[in-house]
Amino acid sequence: MRYSPLLTDLYELTMLAGYLEEGMTEQHATFDLFFRTNPYEGGYAIFAGLAPALEYLENLRFTPEELVYLTTLGLFTPRFIEFLRDFRFRGRVTAPPEGTVVFAGEPILSVEGSLAEAQFVETGLLTIINYQTLVATKAARMVHAAAGGTVVEFGLRRAHGPNGGLSCARAATVGGVRGSSNVLAGMEYGIPVRGTQAHSWVMAFPDELTSFRAYASAFPDSTILLVDTWDTLGSGVPHAITVARELRERGNELQGIRIDSGDLVYLSRQARTMLDDAGFPGVRIVGSNDLDEYLIDSMKNEGSRIDIYGVGTRLAVCSGPGGGALGGVYKLTELEGRPTLKRSEDPAKSTLPGRKEVRRGMSADGRFLQDVICTPGEEPAPGDTVYDPYNPLRQVALPAGIRWSRLGKTVMEDGVRCGGEESLEVMADRSHREVALLPEGCERLTNPHRYKVSVSKRLQALREELLAQINNQTTIHRDGQDKQE
Amino acid sequence: MRYSPLLTDLYELTMLAGYLEEGMTEQHATFDLFFRTNPYEGGYAIFAGLAPALEYLENLRFTPEELVYLTTLGLFTPRFIEFLRDFRFRGRVTAPPEGTVVFAGEPILSVEGSLAEAQFVETGLLTIINYQTLVATKAARMVHAAAGGTVVEFGLRRAHGPNGGLSCARAATVGGVRGSSNVLAGMEYGIPVRGTQAHSWVMAFPDELTSFRAYASAFPDSTILLVDTWDTLGSGVPHAITVARELRERGNELQGIRIDSGDLVYLSRQARTMLDDAGFPGVRIVGSNDLDEYLIDSMKNEGSRIDIYGVGTRLAVCSGPGGGALGGVYKLTELEGRPTLKRSEDPAKSTLPGRKEVRRGMSADGRFLQDVICTPGEEPAPGDTVYDPYNPLRQVALPAGIRWSRLGKTVMEDGVRCGGEESLEVMADRSHREVALLPEGCERLTNPHRYKVSVSKRLQALREELLAQINNQTTIHRDGQDKQE
Repeated sequence: MRYSPLLTDLYELTMLAGYLEEGMTEQHATFDLFFRTNPYEGGYAIFAGLAPALEYLENLRFTPEELVYLTTLGLFTPRFIEFLRDFRFRGRVTAPPEGTVVFAGEPILSVEGSLAEAQFVETGLLTIINYQTLVATKAARMVHAAAGGTVVEFGLRRAHGPNGGLSCARAATVGGVRGSSNVLAGMEYGIPVRGTQAHSWVMAFPDELTSFRAYASAFPDSTILLVDTWDTLGSGVPHAITVARELRERGNELQGIRIDSGDLVYLSRQARTMLDDAGFPGVRIVGSNDLDEYLIDSMKNEGSRIDIYGVGTRLAVCSGPGGGALGGVYKLTELEGRPTLKRSEDPAKSTLPGRKEVRRGMSADGRFLQDVICTPGEEPAPGDTVYDPYNPLRQVALPAGIRWSRLGKTVMEDGVRCGGEESLEVMADRSHREVALLPEGCERLTNPHRYKVSVSKRLQALREELLAQINNQTTIHRDGQDKQE
Repeated sequence: MRYSPLLTDLYELTMLAGYLEEGMTEQHATFDLFFRTNPYEGGYAIFAGLAPALEYLENLRFTPEELVYLTTLGLFTPRFIEFLRDFRFRGRVTAPPEGTVVFAGEPILSVEGSLAEAQFVETGLLTIINYQTLVATKAARMVHAAAGGTVVEFGLRRAHGPNGGLSCARAATVGGVRGSSNVLAGMEYGIPVRGTQAHSWVMAFPDELTSFRAYASAFPDSTILLVDTWDTLGSGVPHAITVARELRERGNELQGIRIDSGDLVYLSRQARTMLDDAGFPGVRIVGSNDLDEYLIDSMKNEGSRIDIYGVGTRLAVCSGPGGGALGGVYKLTELEGRPTLKRSEDPAKSTLPGRKEVRRGMSADGRFLQDVICTPGEEPAPGDTVYDPYNPLRQVALPAGIRWSRLGKTVMEDGVRCGGEESLEVMADRSHREVALLPEGCERLTNPHRYKVSVSKRLQALREELLAQINNQTTIHRDGQDKQE
């Protein structure tokens, strides 16, 4: 699918035009992409969307029609339009692989290149990474809550888009969901597709049993019957058992039943007993109806007998604390070797200046202990003081015995992807493995243990130095303003 | 943009294959699209997404590559794949025009055609209509809260997609938003595009004043300056005033300033005074930072001096009660002339059977009074009993003096659109006009007055007749089940 370069905010173009006027387009710039709070007030996020983001960068070019449209806006000079005609992304991208566990405050993707190219791709990168990371995290939370049960994705009809459902299915797979109802996601990404029938199928026949028999006859190897159109336990499950017997007589097995309304805990327990008593312990129970990680968790605790959780709306729209959006931002951190910083009244919104590397500290047995955001090449060492990014008064010394790895690696150089593309299965394995390596309590759905992310001594010193410079400047301005009053 | 027919749930295809096996594909079917609760717990919704939905229907066809993919799934017979090769939508669609005020419980779009075509388009229609109606409604609420202020849309980077932002910009325009940062939406839909610079622009220069001057020099007629990078009142606004003076000396006017953080009420009031005192009452103030209708309303009440509200995240992801999704559903209501009904334990989930027409009752001066869902051709008359759709014990007689109009009209016949396409401006005018025609209190943001939507006497009788039939059937089944135990 082509990702138009016009799928961007106008200000990326007006800034580019301004940089061209000022002769600044070729200045060397670094931008960091990060988010300020973990999604869903949880303890972690699952990084996703990198491969589509790199595809966007590699194929970035304006069509003649797009340039004609930009000309009609009356904002841009012919020289700028010509500049766009040959515009490409030729920079460097650093990021961890998809499926990696990441945390608020640390750069999850960095772009180095000319000011023009590195600035322009802001909106495109944010659009792709924000949503996919949000979905992958939601999916991982649901899979964790299902505690061994299978989670499949049915959210297309409520996804934002039209093609939000496509990104949803991809990112949900990175987060551990196994299968989607979305057929295009199956074709594009090789995701296993799942689905059987809607209530309208049952209603299209003279009665429920006839509708079940017709479906089983068309799909003898893969039938899951929707049993709640009229009366789940009174007619749906008994009819499903009748059809299961008929299938078995012909050498096939009914695969499952689906319950889409009512008290899923009660109904799944009753249905399980009825199926077992009738000799069908292998028929699986699919439950759906506005499920999310909290409901799955509570149903598990109440003894639900659901084997497969069909999740739709709340995965696709990423509902929950935080309101459906990952607040990923993309900030200039260095220009022509000069580190830059955005100060804010809110210390949490002041950025970390300069190029950086995230180091992940692990125990001898590989469990995650803490992350430190460092300046390039800086090696965390025992005894080093590190700082809370939001409150520099909170500082601790690093203990001994930590193994340090580097979170990001170069994934694009000179606008060309480095190395091959990973499969979604590899990413899903990674997210599953890494969530299990978190310190105890970080995977909790609410009020999780807070994973420690710190700022290194050298980075903290740089930040303080720049803040002092800005304070000097604004003091001067305030004085000037006072004189005018 | 092509909308692949594979952007659908697998079960639409398995059901189609089943209908083909059963020889049912050509049965004449009617489906209704409706939602069960108004979005955001509000008093109304703005219908949007019809033109893209009709475009999807008109162009529905499978490519050879898509058919090859479906073959590889191992689910479908060669006969079914051949059936899909010539599959088109040739049915009828009935709907109100976009921008129409609609309510929970009433059909907002109906599809009549062969069972195959009418069933298959379920997911595609829901994906398009659900999100666009949700956005248009959110936009209308924000525009209402802004009470004469302008609202523009900046949500692309947080939209779901990648191209959710494109639908967002379109639907927001239907709801009354005037302008978007999304350049592709400008090209595709002729929406005015808006935007100036990001914090990174300011940070890319040695100091703020230099950055402001550079921007004003590149765009002397359309400059809006972002004043909150370091210190809104201490440096941002004073520097903007300096640049406004310099622009005026050259015969231009600064268009505005933008504040993106902090206490927008306080800052906008202070900035307004500073700008006015300096002789720039025409410089407008743009406010942004996670705004929604509730914040806009509260800021208005507190004396905010913001002229233009930039809304992003909360519009694009439709945050608020309801969690980012319109629960639109698509239900079979008639097959081969036989009305169908889905019963549910929850009376609110029992559907209304058969083909229907929504009649809107208006006062002599055109204000909306109430809607009645009727059987085809049924004319509401004074004294007729009408019923609450969720509680048939609640019934009233229709008063005299009501003018009745028909909400929907035929917008597609034999798979071809009827009449020309409306402009987004016409739709926006309609939504604005119709919100103003609502009974007092229906437009309230929280706890609104509930607009009356009733079921006609004839439709209620049909519903009760079918429910009695189903109760008979399930009683028989329950007896059968009892005997097995």
